[in-house]
Amino acid sequence: MSIYWSEILKGIDPYVPGEQPGDKKYIKLNTNENPYPPSPRVLEKIREVADEKLRLYPDPECEDLREALAEYHKLDKSQVYAGNGSDELLAFTFLAFFNPTGLPILFPDITYSFYPVYSNLFKIKYRQIPLDGSFNVPAEQFYAENGGIIIPNPNAPTGKYLPVHSIGEILRRNTQSVVVVDEAYIDFGGESAVKYIGEHPNLLVVRTLSKSHSLAGMRVGYALGHKELIEGIARIKNSVNSYTLDRIALAAAVEAIKDTAYFQETRRKIINTRERVSSQLKNMGFDVVDSMANFIFVAHPCVPACEIFRQLRERGILVRHFKKPRIDNYLRVSVGSDDEMFCFLKEIGRIVGF
Amino acid sequence: MSIYWSEILKGIDPYVPGEQPGDKKYIKLNTNENPYPPSPRVLEKIREVADEKLRLYPDPECEDLREALAEYHKLDKSQVYAGNGSDELLAFTFLAFFNPTGLPILFPDITYSFYPVYSNLFKIKYRQIPLDGSFNVPAEQFYAENGGIIIPNPNAPTGKYLPVHSIGEILRRNTQSVVVVDEAYIDFGGESAVKYIGEHPNLLVVRTLSKSHSLAGMRVGYALGHKELIEGIARIKNSVNSYTLDRIALAAAVEAIKDTAYFQETRRKIINTRERVSSQLKNMGFDVVDSMANFIFVAHPCVPACEIFRQLRERGILVRHFKKPRIDNYLRVSVGSDDEMFCFLKEIGRIVGF
Repeated sequence: MSIYWSEILKGIDPYVPGEQPGDKKYIKLNTNENPYPPSPRVLEKIREVADEKLRLYPDPECEDLREALAEYHKLDKSQVYAGNGSDELLAFTFLAFFNPTGLPILFPDITYSFYPVYSNLFKIKYRQIPLDGSFNVPAEQFYAENGGIIIPNPNAPTGKYLPVHSIGEILRRNTQSVVVVDEAYIDFGGESAVKYIGEHPNLLVVRTLSKSHSLAGMRVGYALGHKELIEGIARIKNSVNSYTLDRIALAAAVEAIKDTAYFQETRRKIINTRERVSSQLKNMGFDVVDSMANFIFVAHPCVPACEIFRQLRERGILVRHFKKPRIDNYLRVSVGSDDEMFCFLKEIGRIVGF
Repeated sequence: MSIYWSEILKGIDPYVPGEQPGDKKYIKLNTNENPYPPSPRVLEKIREVADEKLRLYPDPECEDLREALAEYHKLDKSQVYAGNGSDELLAFTFLAFFNPTGLPILFPDITYSFYPVYSNLFKIKYRQIPLDGSFNVPAEQFYAENGGIIIPNPNAPTGKYLPVHSIGEILRRNTQSVVVVDEAYIDFGGESAVKYIGEHPNLLVVRTLSKSHSLAGMRVGYALGHKELIEGIARIKNSVNSYTLDRIALAAAVEAIKDTAYFQETRRKIINTRERVSSQLKNMGFDVVDSMANFIFVAHPCVPACEIFRQLRERGILVRHFKKPRIDNYLRVSVGSDDEMFCFLKEIGRIVGF
C-alpha cells in the first residue's frame, strides 16, 4: 500500500480471474472458454480488416455491431449497447443505475464474484440472498424492497438455471429499480429474459460473446434493454472512455453474430458433452449440480475438492476451485472438447479411485 | 432522463469525441489520428494471430506488452501498465489516486476536456489553473496545495509544450500527491518526464499508441511510474474488468513498439509537415500557436473560426472547433499527409481570401 493511494483504492479487494497459463500445455477447464475455435468467418474477417484504417479511431457508437445484435434479437438498435466484455457493461451498470445512498441492491450469496467487487468499488450497499440447499435461486426472496437486483441466469459458478417465468414474476413485483439479468451462459440451454424487455423498462439483460461465440480473446459483451437504460450506459461509457471496442473486435463480433449456423452447431456440441460428462461423473459418485451452462459444478463425497484440484493440476488439467463458504468442496469444470473431457474423466476417475 | 438513472448518472456531462464519419469521403483532420498506416509488421502480426486461440481469454496482466514497453523505456516491467487507450488509464488514475473528500486537484483551464468529465463522474473537486495569454502552462501556479495534479505535455488542444525541467520543478515542490503527466503527444518533439520516474515515486506518465504509433483503431495506452502506483492502477482495473486489452490489440501493440525504425520515420514526417504548414498558415495571416504535437491550433484575425470550420466541412475537410471560452475563435487541425495538407492549405487560403 502506498501513501498515494486513494481511500477507495485502499478499501477494495479486486476480482481474481482464473489462471491463464502461458505456453505450458494444460487442458484448460478453468475459465469457461469455448473449446471450439471462433467461426472461420470471424478469423477471415479479422485478416480482412487488418489494414491501414487501424490508424483511425473506431466508431464510438458501435453502430454496425449494435445493428447486427438488434436484428439477431429482434429489437431496435436503441435498445442495444456494446462493450469491452460484459464485465465492463456490468461495471457501467453499477454506476448508472445503483445509488450509494439508496437501499441495498440484491444478488445471490453464491454468484459471480465480481458483483461484490463492483459494489465495494462504487460504494453500493448490497444484501446477498442465500441460495437454497440445492443451490436454487429463491425468486420470492427478491420481492423485497431494494435499490436494484442482479441475477445471473444461469447462475455462476453453480450453472443452475432459474426458469424464466420466475424472472418475469420478479419483474412484475419490482418496478421501481433496475433488474439486471446477467445471461453470460444463457445460450447453453436456458430461455432468455429478453422477451420481457418490451413490457419492463427497468430490465437490463447483459450478455457476452466470450463463451457461446468462442471470442473470449476479443472482449465483446452487450446489453439489451429500454432505450433510456441504454442511453444511461452510453453516458457512463462516454464519461470513462470514448472507444472501448477496437476496430478488429467490432468487425469480429458482427461476423460472429451473423454466423448463426456455426453458433448453433458448436453450442449443441457443448450441451451434448455437458450432459454426457455429467452422467459419467454421477456414475463415479460425484454430486453434480444440474447445469444449463458450459461448465459443471461438482463435489465428491470422500475426496476433498482442493485435493482433486491439486492432483488434476499435477496431471496437466486446470479446473477452478473457489475457497468460499458453502462451495469450498466444489469444483467448477468448464465443458471442453470431447477429447479433453475424455482425459479429464480418466484422470478424475483415478483420483477418486473409480 | 429516466427514473432509473442513478444520482451520479443524472449529474454527469459526458465527453463528446470528434466526429467519425462513416463511408463519406472526408479529409479527416479532426481527431489527431496519424496520417500514416500502422507499421506493416503490425498488420502482418494481426493476420498471424487471428487464429483459434481467440477462443481463450487474453493475458490479464499484459506481460508481453509490458515487457516490450519496459525495454523501450528502460524501466522495470513493474513500472509499466497497459490499458484500453490512455483514456481508460486516466479514468482508473482518478479512482486510484484522487480523493472525493480531499483537496481539489489541479489542471489547466484550457486542456483535454476529459479531465473535468472524470472529476464529475468520480466526485473529485478540481481547480483549473489559467493558461497565460500565449497559452503557456504557468508551472509555478501548480506549486500550490493540491489533491493531485494533471498536466498534459504537450497540452491539448493548444499543442504548447512545457519544458520538461518545469515538470521536474513541480515534482520537487510536490511530494504529497500524485502528479500525472499526460504525454499523448510527446513523441512529436517534446522531451518526456519519464526520466524523473526514478526519483519521484508520485509521478505517473500516461501515454498512447493512438497518435505516434498509428493505432487509434486498436485502443492501446500505457502508464509508467513507481511500482506502487502501477499496482494501484492494476487493483482498480481488476475491480472493473479483468481483461481490457484483447489478444489482437496486445500482439499489435508489441509489434508497434518494437518497430522503432518505422516509428521514427513517420513521426519525423509529421513534425516536418507540421513545421511547413505552420509557416504557411502564418504567411496567410493566421495566429499559429507553437505546437509540439501532431496538430496545430490556429485563429484568423478576420474570419471567425466557426465560419472557417463550416466552410472547410462543406469542402470535405473536417477539423475540430471547441465552443469554449478563450478558444472559440481557434481551430485544432491535425497534421495529415502532405497531400491532405496541400488540399487543406488551398481551401483555407480561399476561405480567408489569401
